[in-house]
Amino acid sequence: MHATLLNCSLKRSPEPSNTQMLADSVVAVMKGWGVETTSYRLADLRLAHGVATELGEGDEWPRVHQSILASQILVVATPTWVGHPSSLAQQAIERMDAMISETGDDGRPVAYDKVAGVVVTGNEDGAHHVISEVAGALVDIGFTIPGQAWTYWNRGPGPGPTFSETSEGREWSYRTGRAMAANLVAVAKALAERPMPAPPS
Amino acid sequence: MHATLLNCSLKRSPEPSNTQMLADSVVAVMKGWGVETTSYRLADLRLAHGVATELGEGDEWPRVHQSILASQILVVATPTWVGHPSSLAQQAIERMDAMISETGDDGRPVAYDKVAGVVVTGNEDGAHHVISEVAGALVDIGFTIPGQAWTYWNRGPGPGPTFSETSEGREWSYRTGRAMAANLVAVAKALAERPMPAPPS
Amino acid sequence: MHATLLNCSLKRSPEPSNTQMLADSVVAVMKGWGVETTSYRLADLRLAHGVATELGEGDEWPRVHQSILASQILVVATPTWVGHPSSLAQQAIERMDAMISETGDDGRPVAYDKVAGVVVTGNEDGAHHVISEVAGALVDIGFTIPGQAWTYWNRGPGPGPTFSETSEGREWSYRTGRAMAANLVAVAKALAERPMPAPPS
Amino acid sequence: MHATLLNCSLKRSPEPSNTQMLADSVVAVMKGWGVETTSYRLADLRLAHGVATELGEGDEWPRVHQSILASQILVVATPTWVGHPSSLAQQAIERMDAMISETGDDGRPVAYDKVAGVVVTGNEDGAHHVISEVAGALVDIGFTIPGQAWTYWNRGPGPGPTFSETSEGREWSYRTGRAMAANLVAVAKALAERPMPAPPS
Repeated sequence: MHATLLNCSLKRSPEPSNTQMLADSVVAVMKGWGVETTSYRLADLRLAHGVATELGEGDEWPRVHQSILASQILVVATPTWVGHPSSLAQQAIERMDAMISETGDDGRPVAYDKVAGVVVTGNEDGAHHVISEVAGALVDIGFTIPGQAWTYWNRGPGPGPTFSETSEGREWSYRTGRAMAANLVAVAKALAERPMPAPPS
Repeated sequence: MHATLLNCSLKRSPEPSNTQMLADSVVAVMKGWGVETTSYRLADLRLAHGVATELGEGDEWPRVHQSILASQILVVATPTWVGHPSSLAQQAIERMDAMISETGDDGRPVAYDKVAGVVVTGNEDGAHHVISEVAGALVDIGFTIPGQAWTYWNRGPGPGPTFSETSEGREWSYRTGRAMAANLVAVAKALAERPMPAPPS
Repeated sequence: MHATLLNCSLKRSPEPSNTQMLADSVVAVMKGWGVETTSYRLADLRLAHGVATELGEGDEWPRVHQSILASQILVVATPTWVGHPSSLAQQAIERMDAMISETGDDGRPVAYDKVAGVVVTGNEDGAHHVISEVAGALVDIGFTIPGQAWTYWNRGPGPGPTFSETSEGREWSYRTGRAMAANLVAVAKALAERPMPAPPS
Repeated sequence: MHATLLNCSLKRSPEPSNTQMLADSVVAVMKGWGVETTSYRLADLRLAHGVATELGEGDEWPRVHQSILASQILVVATPTWVGHPSSLAQQAIERMDAMISETGDDGRPVAYDKVAGVVVTGNEDGAHHVISEVAGALVDIGFTIPGQAWTYWNRGPGPGPTFSETSEGREWSYRTGRAMAANLVAVAKALAERPMPAPPS
């Protein structure tokens, strides 16, 4: 079983990413369940703007797209900026928009039988909304969202430390992430054994 | 297999409900797949405000709650008001909030293995947002949202006819509803055969 | 200058309301600027469901509506439930929907020249989204939202104390509320002196 | 009086932009009221990812930022993708996030006394949500949102024509845009005459 992780942090490597740190904890748990994860840090890639899979030379989305197609699990990990998913998360959603009309021989959208979850960090309020925005878009595209397939970390209002700067609240986020990982893997297996039907005409 | 339908229209019986009309088309398809649905028109019930399952004498939520517990499928059907789910949809979500901490002997939230979908009507723009808001809340509570488990109907900006007043666009909404029904039933069966795990400690 | 405060807590009097506690701090500052505020605790009122101003005998919305019409400032104060404005906040928005088509002799919607702000409490994440949802609806109805006309309080993920149970973060929320009050009063005065125009035909 | 228009279409020049077409109608009305608008098509610019105003050589945001500082009116015009503001709209919001802590000698955030409005196009449902997301973020940064300072265009569910491909609904969007323009100019003038106060300490 394979997973693809999209880290939608605005920071490029090698700058440390709080979002990667929390997402990695979920990846580690999935690995214990036999899932190999390929991670993409979107800020390090050259991604064209648009809603198609192929957008010309130099655009690095097609290999991310291939990885998603080859995976049973997708994890979108994003910081919270002004209460929203990052622009890179939205850009990934826009590129995945093309998958709505990409279908297999059976007429099923390519995202069918795939599950997705969301990891959110931020030193500001907004995780539940970010999860709803990302999950709602992914359901639209055809992914199934298992119950409680998310985790997040932030603190209350006003300036404060980031995820990597304080251990406060971290254990809650890790424990919630362990449930997320277990639910992603379990539902992915259930759909592998009993696939979703072709859309009725 | 059983389903519960919550019609969150603001109108009481016997006033016709556009939301019921579209939701009934989904219920009819599910019936063809062997699913019996119990429908609740929330505007006809006396529902207390709060976030607990039991809120005292006269409150009719507990029997809705029992129906949800006895169902493998939940359909939330709501009109769009000022771009949002109706107040009755939000009230139902508030009451279901209690289910986050209701667990079985195995420590699993009671919504685990249950799937949910969303039906939206409105003569105004807003369905995708309403779907995200409702689906995001239900994932939080523990429901799994199958890919493309929604349908909706509305028209463009400005005043216009309602779902029952014009056939324009109706076929798209019905066809999308057939896919919704098929996906709800398929994923519910998959989870019945291979249940979600207890949350890791 | 007058203000109307809608407390959309799900709790009835005399149960203490965290939302009232934070909103009262804003009301007190506005009073220092010469603004008298009338408060409504919506859970104590009998409010019919619908999108009209008059919904029959026993419905107590019409006097809230009269108070809003007589005010230059509206404050919507709401708890956060499952990441959303409370069902009572949405119910108030639904009732105010009628104001879109209520116009004066000059053809201007009755909410023109009125300003609005939002107060949010919760022990869970979600305030920025709640503010966007409420403010977006109020702009639709015709209210003007002054810059930074909001305050909120919550804590990070997981179970925790409420606003009244801890002083943590409280000073930030009060200070932000003082700016909210000042901005509401300033923009209300600016619009009183220089009213918005009638909609072009 | 000056305005800045951010066209957040994903398409680059010289490809025609539906969003530009609707936004231009608002700009034309504002011009009749004496407002000169500078337009930026963000897809044509090289914009770095981050939440600061200065992000190094080659980044073209600083001149957009200068234009916003020199304007009394900001118009964010965006298409709707998977129900959300475009990734370029979110990127602009992220860059404007820095303005929260940019203050004048008087301690006031630089966005104070500025007004903002939103123009949305799409062949899919979602405009009200897009308006709420963008307006909510701009209020956070300090902009004032005048009542009904938005216009949009889309059609009902399913595939369909774009704004430039059909005249259906267009007159509603133009008329709503005329009100938007009038309200932006009126409230900008009101705030110019009676500025917002410095934040209380």
